[in-house]
Order: sequence, then structure tokens, then C-alpha cells
Amino acid sequence: MSKIWFEDFKPGSVTEYGPRAITREEILSFAAEFDPQPMHLDEEAARQTMLGGLSASGWHTCCLVMRMIADGFILNSSSMGANAVDEVKWHAPVRPDDSLTVRATVLDTRPSRSRPGMGIVSMQFEVFNGSNVRVMTMKTPLLMGLREPDAAS
Amino acid sequence: MSKIWFEDFKPGSVTEYGPRAITREEILSFAAEFDPQPMHLDEEAARQTMLGGLSASGWHTCCLVMRMIADGFILNSSSMGANAVDEVKWHAPVRPDDSLTVRATVLDTRPSRSRPGMGIVSMQFEVFNGSNVRVMTMKTPLLMGLREPDAAS
Repeated sequence: MSKIWFEDFKPGSVTEYGPRAITREEILSFAAEFDPQPMHLDEEAARQTMLGGLSASGWHTCCLVMRMIADGFILNSSSMGANAVDEVKWHAPVRPDDSLTVRATVLDTRPSRSRPGMGIVSMQFEVFNGSNVRVMTMKTPLLMGLREPDAAS
Repeated sequence: MSKIWFEDFKPGSVTEYGPRAITREEILSFAAEFDPQPMHLDEEAARQTMLGGLSASGWHTCCLVMRMIADGFILNSSSMGANAVDEVKWHAPVRPDDSLTVRATVLDTRPSRSRPGMGIVSMQFEVFNGSNVRVMTMKTPLLMGLREPDAAS
């Protein structure tokens, strides 16, 4: 696969990554380390919450998205990271043994004004479970190196 | 400590949580699992990036904030979770052996219109390292149970 640069991202283009399974053990272990709330740690207590049963920490889902897009394209790109997330929404619970996929849509691209050689790729990530329920959405501006820095100036 | 309810959050009030140290081993281990980009995994490769040296995944910092606020007040509150994050900004790198603290400011509170008994507490979390450099900010609406549901209607 040839390396992906800023110029390769076209507004409106859609790609998909995953699937990635999430186990009960992973949910419990992540929650014990980072988010020890009852709905992420304990089956019985979780049933009494708004989520109605054991579900992954929303941060866990974010981290799995990061891993899926890293493997999917970031590690094969001129990515320089990201310095912000514009919005995260958790629409539905992520349950043990869910299989997650990510649909990535390019919203907008523009060369950076302050940093020559860099561009901003605004992306939306939608996360679906195995029943095609949208469990999470996220918008984030990725910083990408330009293949031809001089062409943008 | 008596349990904290929606009514106890006052706009403008500020509380602080932490400190929480982050080690090189934790940075590497988190990155290997969730965010295997060079700047989070490899000292030498990290020096060639915009971050200028090994630094924690931004998602790792988010997760540590979650843990600090869980221990700080969420687990002792009527929290029902959160269904969104309005904004995350990573301002400066988090380095091995940094000591992180969180300053939490209540931006706004309002009873939920759609769910009686629940209120929304909009909070800003600012994360500082041991040198008092602000490394991250985040805004998020927390869902909190009301102590006196009937008084709000």
C-alpha cells in the first residue's frame, strides 16, 4: 500500500475499518483501570443504571476507534497526530462480545496557514455494532503532511 | 463524605483532583494496545515528530482524567454517566513521569427537560502537569440525578 498524504483525502469520501470484537474481560479490565463506574464493572449494578446492563466505558470505545483507524490508515499516512476532538457522542451502549466497525467520512480538508507542509483533514467517525446500531460518533481534525508542500503556497 | 447531587453543583465553582503520575511504562503499554503511533511508542522515532520526544497518547490523558474525576467525585455522586464530550484540546505533550492534576469548573447546570429526575452539569476539565503547564482541556455535560426531583418541575 502506498503512503497516504493530505492530498489523498477528498471531502465526501468514505472508508470503513474493523471489525474489532470487544470482550467482557476487556470491558471489566479497562473499567477497573480507568473508569470504575458500576455500569462498566458489575453486571448486577449495571442493570440498575440507565444503560440497563454491563457496557463498555465510552472512553474504551474511543480507544478502540483510535486503534482501528491507526491500523486502518493512520500508520500508513503522513499523519502528524491531532490536537483536538471537536465532538464525541455516545448513542447506544457497547456490550460484551459486540463487534465494532468504524465508518470514516472526510468532512473537509484545508492546508494549514500557520504550518507550511501540513494540512487539516476534518473527519467524522461513526461506530457501529454487529447489529448495525450506531453506538458512537466523533468529529476530529487530523493533521497530515502534504505530499507537495510547495503546491499549496 | 455525603453523596453529591445535581443541586450541589454551582456554576463557577472550582475543584481540583489528582495528582496522578504517569510512567514511561504506562505510556508505552497504553500506546501498544490502543494508539501505536511512533511518538507514543518509540523514544528515537518520537524525537523526529512534532512532539519532539516520547509523549502519552491524548486518549491516555483522557482516560487518566476519567479516573481522577471518578475517584474525585463521580463515584460519590448521583452521576448517571455522560452521553457526549463537547470538546477536547491537547495543548502540550504529556511526558514520562509527569504528575497530572485536574481543575474542574462548573460552567452551567440545568434540569433535563426530557428526563425528570435528571439534570445536566456542564463541566470544563483542565489538566496541568507538575510544571503547571496546561496540557489538555475538555468540556463535557455530565448527567446527574436530582436530590429533589419534584422541586424542579
